[in-house]
Amino acid sequence: MDLHGDELTDAVVTSFDGSLEPRTKEVMSALVRHLHAFAREVDLTEDEYFLAIDFLTRTGQISDDKRQEFVLLADTLGLSMLTVGLGSPDAEGATESTVFGPFFVEGSPEVPNGADLANGAPGQPCLVSGRVLTTKGEPIAGATVETWQADEDGFYDVQKDGLTGPQNRGHLKTDADGNYSFWAVKPVAYPIPVDGPVGEMLRAGGRGWMRPAHIHFMVTAPGYHRLITHVFEAADPYLQEDAVFGVKDSLVTEFTEHPDGHYSVSYDLVLAEETP
Amino acid sequence: MDLHGDELTDAVVTSFDGSLEPRTKEVMSALVRHLHAFAREVDLTEDEYFLAIDFLTRTGQISDDKRQEFVLLADTLGLSMLTVGLGSPDAEGATESTVFGPFFVEGSPEVPNGADLANGAPGQPCLVSGRVLTTKGEPIAGATVETWQADEDGFYDVQKDGLTGPQNRGHLKTDADGNYSFWAVKPVAYPIPVDGPVGEMLRAGGRGWMRPAHIHFMVTAPGYHRLITHVFEAADPYLQEDAVFGVKDSLVTEFTEHPDGHYSVSYDLVLAEETP
Ligand SMILES: [Fe+2]
Ligand SMILES: [Fe+2]
Repeated sequence: MDLHGDELTDAVVTSFDGSLEPRTKEVMSALVRHLHAFAREVDLTEDEYFLAIDFLTRTGQISDDKRQEFVLLADTLGLSMLTVGLGSPDAEGATESTVFGPFFVEGSPEVPNGADLANGAPGQPCLVSGRVLTTKGEPIAGATVETWQADEDGFYDVQKDGLTGPQNRGHLKTDADGNYSFWAVKPVAYPIPVDGPVGEMLRAGGRGWMRPAHIHFMVTAPGYHRLITHVFEAADPYLQEDAVFGVKDSLVTEFTEHPDGHYSVSYDLVLAEETP
Repeated sequence: MDLHGDELTDAVVTSFDGSLEPRTKEVMSALVRHLHAFAREVDLTEDEYFLAIDFLTRTGQISDDKRQEFVLLADTLGLSMLTVGLGSPDAEGATESTVFGPFFVEGSPEVPNGADLANGAPGQPCLVSGRVLTTKGEPIAGATVETWQADEDGFYDVQKDGLTGPQNRGHLKTDADGNYSFWAVKPVAYPIPVDGPVGEMLRAGGRGWMRPAHIHFMVTAPGYHRLITHVFEAADPYLQEDAVFGVKDSLVTEFTEHPDGHYSVSYDLVLAEETP
């Protein structure tokens, strides 16, 4: 029963042969092979093993209904963007996807098209509008547009104590011509939370922790792939060094400053049809 | 700034170029490459990604000062045994290592050689003895022998509520001739805890969750490598299907039953010298 070297890996892989679902066996055996190959390649020490155990444990324990440190870890290791890329429909002309991020919360308020979502959040007023379209350029009426973003101080509502309601967060339906619009504040670049394990990793890695200014969107409509994306501001200085590798050129657009101090941005969101 | 395919992986790897320690860069870039290769190989879906986020979060959250679910996960994925193997001194004649396991606790009582550690735990009395030796067969006096094990019901003391003190757990010093001995109960095969995320994984994987009967040892002496190992019972029916892949033939030995119903086992623990 001595298991040395590759025999150990083979034994663990084989232990999943009786998986209830074929996919479980497929995923777990690949996971075991790559995990073992990693440990062998770096000649993982027992100290590093225990450091990893402690790191992962604290990553779980700092997570709660308002903070998801494992999503942040997956984001900063590029796994989120990789998964987004693997899952994206290969539909010519559809808006590209990017990371979901750790700040989405279920149950945002439904608001009428044109509503002000800022709800007292600090920042310059910003009118966000556009259309939800098919890849053929036809409007999609009644699509659900969910949005969330940080305020001028770089904080999402869920990161702030003592708020009486959501800020810069809500969902609405497109009108008959596919139009959506809402007011929020102009987004700014913000640091991802670095007071937890992910912050330790970024500091040890000599890495930055800024994200360029962006507005989150999740768009759904029956018969179309769900779109999860951001719209980034073209003038942002951090576009080339997003801490979560989420920027795509097609998602970067100009925000216009108006004489009265408010901003506006228009961006059309194009959904890929579900293939039957 | 569009990062597709391998460019994304390269960008994440490169982001660790400024690591404060060269080892951080080495480990993290290997981790990122293997993590991404895994996700690509299985074409990881977003549902699976979120299932993994949830699984890891709960694995951290169920862990506390008495339960370490991430150690259990590493054990059941063979990572613990792999790390043990990578870290073991290649010393001819030294006792082999095996997994540390999730049930060690700091601060066990120091007891005199020959003490009874059972402390009321259910099970057949068992006298455990042997010598701590160098690879040349010379006794090591004053070595610290730490031991812990489950009782007849398959529970470690830390898994039980309402105990007033440790059971089957303690540490002692070898005498001038390198002898150690203590009483505990005869160990039995036991199930690893399957009421948490690791249990879900094992069930989905169609895997077993028994560990063959064993006694845990951690032995330290100045000038020698720390030894973390088990002694397994030769008659155990689960020796070929240890849930954590920890059995090594050299660690399996006979337990002797005596006419009055008690058991005894003798096993010498041989430490590798530290190389200067
Ligand atoms: Fe964000
Ligand atoms: Fe054990």
